[in-house]
Amino acid sequence: MDSEFLRKLIMPAKTKIAMVIMDGLGGLPLEPGGKTELETAYTPNLDALAEQSILGLTLPVGPGITPGSGPGHLAIFGYDPIKYEIGRGALEALGVDFELGPDDIAARGNFCTVDAAGLLTDRRAGRIPNETSRELVELLRTIRIDGAEFFIELVKEHRFAFVLRSPGLGDALTETDPLKISVPPLPVRALNPDSENAARLINEFVRQAQNLLADKHPANMILLRGFARFPQVPLFKELFGLDAAAIAVNGMYRGVARLVGMTVLDVPGDALADEFTTMERNWSDFDFFYLHVKNTDTAGEQGDFFGKVRAIEEVDALIPCLLALKPDVVIVSGDHSSPAVLKSHSWHPVPTLVYSRYVRADGISEFGERACARGSLGFLPATDIMPIALANAGRIAKYGA
Amino acid sequence: MDSEFLRKLIMPAKTKIAMVIMDGLGGLPLEPGGKTELETAYTPNLDALAEQSILGLTLPVGPGITPGSGPGHLAIFGYDPIKYEIGRGALEALGVDFELGPDDIAARGNFCTVDAAGLLTDRRAGRIPNETSRELVELLRTIRIDGAEFFIELVKEHRFAFVLRSPGLGDALTETDPLKISVPPLPVRALNPDSENAARLINEFVRQAQNLLADKHPANMILLRGFARFPQVPLFKELFGLDAAAIAVNGMYRGVARLVGMTVLDVPGDALADEFTTMERNWSDFDFFYLHVKNTDTAGEQGDFFGKVRAIEEVDALIPCLLALKPDVVIVSGDHSSPAVLKSHSWHPVPTLVYSRYVRADGISEFGERACARGSLGFLPATDIMPIALANAGRIAKYGA
Repeated sequence: MDSEFLRKLIMPAKTKIAMVIMDGLGGLPLEPGGKTELETAYTPNLDALAEQSILGLTLPVGPGITPGSGPGHLAIFGYDPIKYEIGRGALEALGVDFELGPDDIAARGNFCTVDAAGLLTDRRAGRIPNETSRELVELLRTIRIDGAEFFIELVKEHRFAFVLRSPGLGDALTETDPLKISVPPLPVRALNPDSENAARLINEFVRQAQNLLADKHPANMILLRGFARFPQVPLFKELFGLDAAAIAVNGMYRGVARLVGMTVLDVPGDALADEFTTMERNWSDFDFFYLHVKNTDTAGEQGDFFGKVRAIEEVDALIPCLLALKPDVVIVSGDHSSPAVLKSHSWHPVPTLVYSRYVRADGISEFGERACARGSLGFLPATDIMPIALANAGRIAKYGA
Repeated sequence: MDSEFLRKLIMPAKTKIAMVIMDGLGGLPLEPGGKTELETAYTPNLDALAEQSILGLTLPVGPGITPGSGPGHLAIFGYDPIKYEIGRGALEALGVDFELGPDDIAARGNFCTVDAAGLLTDRRAGRIPNETSRELVELLRTIRIDGAEFFIELVKEHRFAFVLRSPGLGDALTETDPLKISVPPLPVRALNPDSENAARLINEFVRQAQNLLADKHPANMILLRGFARFPQVPLFKELFGLDAAAIAVNGMYRGVARLVGMTVLDVPGDALADEFTTMERNWSDFDFFYLHVKNTDTAGEQGDFFGKVRAIEEVDALIPCLLALKPDVVIVSGDHSSPAVLKSHSWHPVPTLVYSRYVRADGISEFGERACARGSLGFLPATDIMPIALANAGRIAKYGA
C-alpha cells in the first residue's frame, strides 16, 4: 500500500503500540521433520498471547530474499526496503551511534598493510587490537582538508567508520579496496560529475592518511568501501503520527531507529530485563515502543540452536512485564530469519503475532512458524504489519464515505 | 518483485533445481464435495515429497484469469506474463519448432474454402488431411516477393504456421479471417505507419496464394490471424544465472522454453519415462531442468477425469527416478488448471510444491488442491516460485547489511 495514501488517513489517538523484534527470529528444525528454535522453546506467555492474536508469516523484502538487518528493520517499521536502501557505509556509521546528517557520506574503513612497493599484503592489518587502532584513529582525526570535515570512529580491531561532511556531495563512488592482495589500493573514482568533489576529497584524505601511517606497520594504510549518503527516509512521526521510542543495546539497531526519527532511549545495563525496564519507565512518554532483542540472532548466526531457544525463552519470561503496561497493540516478530542450521540470515518468512482487544483472534494457542503459517494473516509483506497495528490502535480513519 | 532487483542478487552455486510441470494440473471435483483429479490420484511419492516441502496455490496471471499455455509457462518460469505477451502467431510458430528471430512476424494460417464470388463457405477447408495440406504448403513455399522471406510450416490438417521475415516490420495488423462465412476474407490493414510495409507484403502473399490455390478446392484460399512479432524476453541465464534444459515432447512447450533461452533436449521416444531418462542422462550438464507433462492437460481438456487421474499417477510413479538424482530443489506444479468438468483451461490456482533440505516444511503429507491451500506458501503469484527455488538452492545473496 502506498505510504502517502496511508498517511492521509492517520488520526490521533491515546493508544500505545509495543513492537518486540527478536532479531533473526525465524528458524529451521535441526533435522527435517523436527521443530524449529521457536517451536522448541518453552513459551507459555507468548503462546497465551498468540491465542488472543492474529498470526502470520512476514516477508521483509520479497520471496526468496535474505534481508540484511537494515532492510529487515525498515520493512517491519513499515518502509519499503527496496525503495529506501541503507548503504553499507551508512549502516557502519549508524552502528557506532554516529549521528549521520544529510551532508554526510559514510564508508566502512579498514586499516591494512602495504609493502614497500605499496602493494597490499593484508587487507585487515593482522586484525590489530583495539588499543592500537584507537591511537591510529586519533591520528587520522588530525587530517584537515579545506571545504570538508572528516569523522573517524573506531568500530573494532582494524575496522572504523569514516564520514566525510560537506554540502552537496554525490556518493556515486568506486571503492579503494581491491578485495585482494598483491595489488595497490585503488583510487576513488567518481561515477558521475556530481560525485567528483567527493572523490577528490577522499583521495586527498587517503594520501594524507598514508603519510601519517607510514611507520605504523602493520597498520600502514587504509581501505574505504561502501560509500553511501545518509538515506533520506520520511519520518515515522510524519508517516504514522506516532511518537516512537527505540530500546536497543546494539548500535546498528539504535542507528536504524534514529534514521526513521525514533527517540533512542538509553538502556541502563545490557541485560534484556533492562530493556523491558526502560520501556516501563518511559511508558507514559511515547505512543510506540520498538524493543530489540539481539541474542536470538547472535545464537542463530553462531549455529547455536539451543542458545537461540534460550534467548527466546528469556523474552517469553519478560512478556508479562510488557502486558502489565496494558499496551493497546502488541507486535511480536523478527527482522528476518536466522536458522541455527544455516548459521546466517535467511530468506524464510518470519513468525509474527499482532495482539489487540480488537483483532479477530485466530485462537491458535502457540507461537511458532507452523502455527503462524495457519494464522489468518497468512504469508504477507512485513510492511503490512504497521497499518494493521495502527488500525487496531484506532489510528486510521475511514477511507471514503 | 522487480526482476532487475533480483538479478543483482543472483550468485553462482553448484546446486540443481528440477521443475516438473504437469500441464493443466489443477482440477475440480466431479460433484461438489468430491475430490479433484489430483486428490483422487494415488500418489504415494508426491505425498511423501509434500511432507518435506512447502505447499501453496499459484496464480499464473492473476485472480480470475485463465492462462493460455504461453503465459502459464512464462509465469512459472518467473516472467511477468502480462509484460511479456506471446502472440498467437508466435506461439504457433514456436509450436512447430520454428526458430523465430527478431525480424520475424508470425501468424496462424488456415486453408479455407471460398465460392466463385470469393465468399467464404468453410473457414477450415473441410479439415483436409495432412497429406493434402502438406502438398499445398509446398505450393505456398514457391511464392517469392522482393524484400522479404516467407516460411510456411504445416501444423496439422488445415492449419499452418506462417512467418514473414524482413527487417523492421511492425506487427500492428488486422487479421484476414472474418470469423464467419458468406463474406470474403479481409485484407490486412496496418494499424500504424510502422506496420504498413508488413501489411503490403502479406496482402501480396495472400493474392499470390489465392492464384496458386485456385483449382485446389476445398482448400482454395488461406486465412491468416494472430500476427505477432517474436517477443523479446530476457534470457533465463541472465535473470537467474542458471544453465537450463527443457524436456518436453510437444512443440509449443519446447518453443516457449527456447524463447527464454533454455537448451531444448531431444527426447528419444514419446513416453513420459523417456523424458525422465533424458533428465538423468543430461543431469551433469545443467543447473535447472524443466520437465513438461502433457497428458494431464490433454485428459482435462477432453473431460476425461479418470484419464487425468491416471496421467498424474504416471508422474507419481516416476518421482523416485527424479529424487534418485538428488536435486537440491524440486518444484512440482502446473502452468494452469484444466479441470475435466470444464473441459478447458481454467482460472483456478495451481497446486504447487517446493522441496529442498532448507524449506521450513509444512508437514502436510498430501499433494492436492486443498492440502496446498493449507500450505505456508498460501495463495501466491506463480512468478514468486523461481525466487523461492533460487533461495533454497543457495543462489541469492543477502540484500543489504
